[in-house]
Parts: sequence; structure tokens; C-alpha cells
Amino acid sequence: MDANKLQSILITGANRGLGLEMVKQLVESGSANCHVYAGCRDPDASKSKPLQELAKKHSKVITVVKLDVTNPTSVSDAAKKVGAHLEGGRLNLLVNNAGILPRGTLQTTTEQDMQSSFDTNVMGPLRVIKEFLPYLCKAAKSCPQPGMSCSKAAVINISTLLGSITKIPETYNFYPAFAYSISKASLNMLNQCSVNEFQKEGIMFVVLHPGWVRTDMGGPEASADIDASESVQGLLKVMRTLTEKQNGAFLDYKGNLLPW
Amino acid sequence: MDANKLQSILITGANRGLGLEMVKQLVESGSANCHVYAGCRDPDASKSKPLQELAKKHSKVITVVKLDVTNPTSVSDAAKKVGAHLEGGRLNLLVNNAGILPRGTLQTTTEQDMQSSFDTNVMGPLRVIKEFLPYLCKAAKSCPQPGMSCSKAAVINISTLLGSITKIPETYNFYPAFAYSISKASLNMLNQCSVNEFQKEGIMFVVLHPGWVRTDMGGPEASADIDASESVQGLLKVMRTLTEKQNGAFLDYKGNLLPW
Repeated sequence: MDANKLQSILITGANRGLGLEMVKQLVESGSANCHVYAGCRDPDASKSKPLQELAKKHSKVITVVKLDVTNPTSVSDAAKKVGAHLEGGRLNLLVNNAGILPRGTLQTTTEQDMQSSFDTNVMGPLRVIKEFLPYLCKAAKSCPQPGMSCSKAAVINISTLLGSITKIPETYNFYPAFAYSISKASLNMLNQCSVNEFQKEGIMFVVLHPGWVRTDMGGPEASADIDASESVQGLLKVMRTLTEKQNGAFLDYKGNLLPW
Repeated sequence: MDANKLQSILITGANRGLGLEMVKQLVESGSANCHVYAGCRDPDASKSKPLQELAKKHSKVITVVKLDVTNPTSVSDAAKKVGAHLEGGRLNLLVNNAGILPRGTLQTTTEQDMQSSFDTNVMGPLRVIKEFLPYLCKAAKSCPQPGMSCSKAAVINISTLLGSITKIPETYNFYPAFAYSISKASLNMLNQCSVNEFQKEGIMFVVLHPGWVRTDMGGPEASADIDASESVQGLLKVMRTLTEKQNGAFLDYKGNLLPW
């Protein structure tokens, strides 16, 4: 996240909400020293129009990539395409942002809710990590500086406070999202396994909670007290400060440590 | 778990390992005051022979039930069958024990490993809880005593220390079981959502880690230092002592509290 370095960043679910806002703030921050690969399921759909317009305006630093995290072939195709475009085959930062949020309790949640949450929120990030891992490894290897950072080689998994098992007594009755909470606890575990597996390779894995955000995916309305812009400002600020000390941390958009 | 009460208990995955040992110790403990429904995927298979022999020996207190937790119809059929047999339609205790343990790291774990772990270790317990919930509710309602216990109405989810996100730095490199750890963190979250959802109904939900046990499912061999008998003795002792104070706890077979 150093303004003096050319960074390559992949963001999934980049056509709306937090993903779109993150692409926007990254390219409009004054530092045009990053190249953003904006992954979205259907680049030609009307819902991807705001992203396409942003990409047109910043055509040198944004590449829109067709990337459906629920489809292994789509993820593999996107990895080939992005890989061929990456300078030296290096990807510095992967932001696993694509996700779905079905609401409901244990009693109202269907098999389909459970399956689609698992597929999008757990298998999705896993597929993307697996396919883009060689590029992250290259970025880590080619960086002369010791330590870890988002400008070197990192994966940010966008999770949620609703994925904190410890906090469920405070969150569940207020905003029951049974399938979602389970999928995000899974993502948190996925992150921690990755921390241990890729420590040697110098790749950092951090889980971030974006706050209760007013996006079209919907947050807990009653307390959705920040907008996407404020959330992303916070997330990017936190991401810029991350070092190996935060490898495996679960932080909110203000940098506060959250419990598993 | 009061010796003076007739209890109805359902144990899934009861044809081998911990499940079989639990059935055995429950019926051979001297108190024949419980009726155990021993769920297993294929009661007629040779691998179910030890359970069938045990059931023959204790035919008044063991009912073998065909129950494949990966098959929604099988779970629903089992619930109808058990429900018709339960005294007053009351089930006091459900032990979600059935599970699979694929080994491997993020890099070696396949889509199939992830999917089958999710299906057996997360969807399995969920399906069984949903289908048997009416009987647990009846048991809770019909009990005049206040508070919670395994002899009133409870669900025990058999998890593992490998499902503790906090402990992954200590466990993952020693025994990498990526898909398994993710599925058990999911089960832990499922448990906590259930705690909040069914507190009013008086049903207790507790997560137990059986220790590193030498069973045919396999534990971390290097430290698999207890046998199924010792593990189940511990688990049953812990289960007997549980009250509403432990509702939502993650405990090992010695009663020690584990972190999420």
C-alpha cells in the first residue's frame, strides 16, 4: 500500500458495494501506482455498469475480470488471464470480498441457503486463493524487504462480526444470519490455517470486518450506521498499516481486534 | 444423566469408534434407565456387526436406527421412526457424533474433501437437530425441574480441538486437517447460534472435544494417547455434570474449557 510502489491487487465482487468502493478509492487516491483487477461474476450485466464506467475512466489502472467464485472453471480462467497480464507474474494483494448474506435462523434456513453460503463465502475464497497462490508466492519471493505487508504479498478475507463465535450471544438475536455466520466462521478458520501454511512463503492472511455498512447486500439495518465510503476508508487505512505482527488477526475497519 | 430417570438418547455414527463405545457404556453402566437409539448409516453392513451384537444383548434398551446424516430423507425417516417409539414423544439427549476426518492442507485438500466434510460434519448435525427438535422441545416442556441438563433436553455436538480457531497455531502444522477444521469451526458456530435460538425452549447445546483418541477414524497418531473407552468415560462424566451454566461451552473430555 506504499504509494511509491507499483502494486497489483485483485478484488472479488468488485461490481457493487464495498468491492466497487474499494476499487474506486484505490484508483482515485492520487497514487496511480497500483493496478486493480476488478473481479465480477458478470461484467456485461447492467449491475456491473458502475464498475465498467469507473474502469473506462481509469483504463490504465483497472482491468475488469470475469470471475465467478462459485465456478471453479471461471476462477481458473480468470487466474490464467490475470496471470498473463501481471508484471513479472506477481500479485501483491488479493481481497476476497465477494459474498452473499442470506438471513434467517436455524429453523428458517434451508439446505439451499446453507449450500450457497458455503459455496460463495467459503469455497469461493478457497478457489481464488488456490488459483492465485503462485502469483502471490512470486510477489513475496521477489520482494527484497523482510517482513509482511499488503504491498508485498497478502490475502485479505472480508469477514464479519457475525462470524465471531464469541460474539454470537450479542449478535444472533439482533441479526440472525445462521448460514452466513457459519460460513464466515469457516472463512475465519480458513484464514488461520492459511496463516500457518504460508508463513514460510511470506504471505500474510488477515480477516477484516467492514462494520455495519449500508450496501445493497444489506447490513443490520437498525445499526447500519456507516456507508461504504467510510467503511472502505477505514479498511484501506488498516490494510496500509498491517505487518507480520497482524498476520492472522481479525480486525474491524477501525483496526480493533475482534475475538474468534 | 440421572440414574433414576428413564432417558431417551439418540447417538449418530453409533456403529464404531466413540459412538459405539458411548452406547456400550450407557447401557452397561448398571443403570438400564435409558433407552438408546443408535443411529448408523448402514445397520446391515459388516462394519455394523459389533453394534448389532450389542443391541441383541441389550435388546430392551438399544434400538438400532438406520440414519445417514448426509441424506435428508434418511434423517427424516429416522425421526418419524424414532418419534413413534419415544415415550410421550420426548427425546432427552441428542449426541451428534457422526463425522468424517479427511486429512490434508489447503494445497492438498480437494473440492470433494471440502464438500463431504461440510455435508457430513455440518449439514449432518443440522439435519438431525431440525428433524428431532420437536421431540427435544417436548422433553424440555414436560420436565418440571427448572434449569438445563442432559437428562432434560440437550444436544451434544462432538467437535474437536482442531476446530478451535484460536488453537490452530498449535495444531495445524502438527496435524493439518484443513477441511475437517473448517467443518468443525462451522459446527461450533452452529452450536452457538442454537444456544441463542433455543434458550427459551430450555434446550442446552454444548460442544465437546473427545481428546486424541485411537479409533478407526484416526486421531493424530503421534499423540493419540487415550483409547475410546477412556474418552467416553470422560465425556459421559462431563455430560452428567452439565447445567445451564455450561450452555454454549466448548469443553474437552476432562471438562476443561476450550477457546473458540
